[in-house]
Amino acid sequence: MGNAEEEKDEEWTGEKFENFSEWYNEVIEKAGLSDKRYPVKGMNIWTPYGWKLMQNIDRETRRLVRETGHQEVKFPLLIPDKEFKKEADHIAGFEDEVYWVTKAGQNELDIPLLLRPTSETAMYPVFDLWVRSHADLPLKIYQMVNVFRYETKQTKAFMRMREFHFFEAHTCHATEEGAEEQIEEDLEIMEELSKKICMPYLALVRTDWDKFPGAEYTVGADALMPTGRTLQMAGIHQYKTNFSEAYDITFEDEEGEHKHVHQTTYGMAERLVGAVIGIHGDDKGLILPPEAAPTQVRIIPIIYGDEETIKSYCEDIKAELKKEGIEVDMDDRDERPGSKFYDAEMKGIPVRLDIGSDEVEEDNITLVRRDTGDKQTIDRDELTEKVKSTFKNMQEDMYEKAKRHLEENIEEIDELSEIDEEKIYKFGWCGKESCGKEIEDITGRDLLGTPYHREGFEGECINCGKKTETMIYLSNTH
Amino acid sequence: MGNAEEEKDEEWTGEKFENFSEWYNEVIEKAGLSDKRYPVKGMNIWTPYGWKLMQNIDRETRRLVRETGHQEVKFPLLIPDKEFKKEADHIAGFEDEVYWVTKAGQNELDIPLLLRPTSETAMYPVFDLWVRSHADLPLKIYQMVNVFRYETKQTKAFMRMREFHFFEAHTCHATEEGAEEQIEEDLEIMEELSKKICMPYLALVRTDWDKFPGAEYTVGADALMPTGRTLQMAGIHQYKTNFSEAYDITFEDEEGEHKHVHQTTYGMAERLVGAVIGIHGDDKGLILPPEAAPTQVRIIPIIYGDEETIKSYCEDIKAELKKEGIEVDMDDRDERPGSKFYDAEMKGIPVRLDIGSDEVEEDNITLVRRDTGDKQTIDRDELTEKVKSTFKNMQEDMYEKAKRHLEENIEEIDELSEIDEEKIYKFGWCGKESCGKEIEDITGRDLLGTPYHREGFEGECINCGKKTETMIYLSNTH
Repeated sequence: MGNAEEEKDEEWTGEKFENFSEWYNEVIEKAGLSDKRYPVKGMNIWTPYGWKLMQNIDRETRRLVRETGHQEVKFPLLIPDKEFKKEADHIAGFEDEVYWVTKAGQNELDIPLLLRPTSETAMYPVFDLWVRSHADLPLKIYQMVNVFRYETKQTKAFMRMREFHFFEAHTCHATEEGAEEQIEEDLEIMEELSKKICMPYLALVRTDWDKFPGAEYTVGADALMPTGRTLQMAGIHQYKTNFSEAYDITFEDEEGEHKHVHQTTYGMAERLVGAVIGIHGDDKGLILPPEAAPTQVRIIPIIYGDEETIKSYCEDIKAELKKEGIEVDMDDRDERPGSKFYDAEMKGIPVRLDIGSDEVEEDNITLVRRDTGDKQTIDRDELTEKVKSTFKNMQEDMYEKAKRHLEENIEEIDELSEIDEEKIYKFGWCGKESCGKEIEDITGRDLLGTPYHREGFEGECINCGKKTETMIYLSNTH
Repeated sequence: MGNAEEEKDEEWTGEKFENFSEWYNEVIEKAGLSDKRYPVKGMNIWTPYGWKLMQNIDRETRRLVRETGHQEVKFPLLIPDKEFKKEADHIAGFEDEVYWVTKAGQNELDIPLLLRPTSETAMYPVFDLWVRSHADLPLKIYQMVNVFRYETKQTKAFMRMREFHFFEAHTCHATEEGAEEQIEEDLEIMEELSKKICMPYLALVRTDWDKFPGAEYTVGADALMPTGRTLQMAGIHQYKTNFSEAYDITFEDEEGEHKHVHQTTYGMAERLVGAVIGIHGDDKGLILPPEAAPTQVRIIPIIYGDEETIKSYCEDIKAELKKEGIEVDMDDRDERPGSKFYDAEMKGIPVRLDIGSDEVEEDNITLVRRDTGDKQTIDRDELTEKVKSTFKNMQEDMYEKAKRHLEENIEEIDELSEIDEEKIYKFGWCGKESCGKEIEDITGRDLLGTPYHREGFEGECINCGKKTETMIYLSNTH
């Protein structure tokens, strides 16, 4: 056995770490998460297993945003040219990426319509009708829809698509403080969701030249992939009155004065699925957090002896778990156990229950945990309790493991020349755009931003040497 | 009091019956189901209350199709020109109605893409990859998506929109019998769903010139609106091998022979919401079936006396119902009770619980049923039981009432000259297209089709007088 340092490193080895892209595509195909054979580039088919995983994540998101008083709406997909073109920075940021509908039936449309790349410009023309007085504030709505961006970079399932599934919350507030509190709330929602999908992340305030088009500032939630590159999973944006001035969204305050509302948005895309696949999987396939898994338990009857008795024992177990609200299925295909294990592992099903004649005879069950591979024999009558405690342990352990990976891959440096690995670096920065862009040029990597929750720092800008209290993060990004 | 006949008629009077269109638009606006001020014609905004109602109906649909072994998927929105143009009748039926994406960013697209008007032509190019052998059959999938049709007729919220919410199930079978059984299953699903939304309907096999483009035959599910006109809520289609031949979807049967699959589809649109609004509402607003209502119970504190005691009594009630899984809210705004009653009625909330100092003192609750307006005093400790039994009674009574309306508005006739009211007529038809089209010309109405579940009939064609065992239905349609 090596020393502690070496053991730690062993956690981050294997096919997934050596050749991530191949591993990722293969797992998606074999686990049945998505079908990329649809005849339009960058637009994949959500197959049942993948769509269920997305819906489970959506279910958690819905629960969290409803609890915080957001209401679900659904705006039309098509946005008129004229509405789209009201906020200058926003147009500049998106105009090269939008799909245009120019024809309907045999007619050229008088006004071209674009497919939403995000819904600010669909929503904000009516917000002024919805918000009249301070009593209508805060307005907190969200929707879950498909959005369209004409990506020119290479597309990748769940990570960079031309049509993708999108959660977007939009809020209006009477004051800037109200909007700032909303951003705090959004970060709490992100934190809770990250526990559900076992996905630690960094909350970083993007640089000015990398913020959302039209935003005052943007907080990105970045996960670390096995490649050592980061993946933005969510964006939380402070708009101040940038859009409300462009769309004239005003309210009457308590003194009868008309003012522009302060706005925020919170966006998350199907990248959450991409991150879950990438961060938790291993060389046997997916590993899904129990609270997000489409199938939480799979029963595998191992039949060499009395088929009827084993099957009825299994059916009993299935019924008990189902009654407890656990998503359970049974693989009773006429296949070898090995091929059934392979399938359950590939799909990342958190808990496997292997049941053969020994188990039936001794009135117990062999429980196998997907993440660690640990096997244990449990008594039949502690089934529910043990399954639930295994879920709980897996949730915690998977989160902690991913967190360890993230933390071990952040290095604080004070010379740019120290950058020689695929990981996250952090260092002092004077805050000047020119200096920041020079750092990006020199390293060929992206500045991710400064911690939203400030870390105490006193040092010098890694580029110009100026004294600074600002720490900034840098990585290659997916 | 009049005689039975007159009393019956009184059920179908009032503003809703006199001026349906105005009533319908007003209720939608006042209850907050939809906002039609979006700046693209025929595309409305789903506001929270309306979207929740749609989601509740979707939830029931999901439950029913999952129970029958359908799996949920999500296909891309955009369909390449070439894939769309493979089945001749289908193209002919839709080509005047599709929206075309011709440009992305600054580029003209090489291959124009259309927005799905329905997803046959998105799905079927990959079905051949999914179906290899008889072991892959039946394939039963569904999706819930937005679809686009460039309507030239006047648009109307939920009833005729250019973008609308759509459920579509697609199945593949080894044999025609398998496909026929699927259609039976679809009709059972429709029947169960109709009980949930209290919506009786007629299942009618459309005429050949009115079937779905590309189908062998179509069964329409028609509801009767207060106007006396019918509204198609769902379409179930037998495709035979029409599409599988065009898209070359084959499977290897048990003898190793390659054959084309038999296909069916089942589509339902947001018209279900339109029908629920129209059929159950009254002059005070919506009346929603408890099993579909976004808010099932509203508590109204009537505060003249001890505010604290009343509020805590109400909170207690709310907590109890919530624990039972009932959707409950409380209107504790600082408004007159009358205005709170008005709002609860407009929104069609099935059960209202009025609670003032009398109720608190006597430890009881005043329960008001939205559909009948009946008030009863219930003991505090029978709360859950009474609320649940009221739900059950309302479901049954609302279904029965709508069924009575449907049945009372079907008239069997044997002369076309008897057609002088807005209702459904039925009569003998020889089955010839020329004769059918003549009937439509003479009456200016649409033949809806012949009963899927044949009614015993022997008579003559109402137009040509030829002997026939075929009965056909006719109405004006929405």
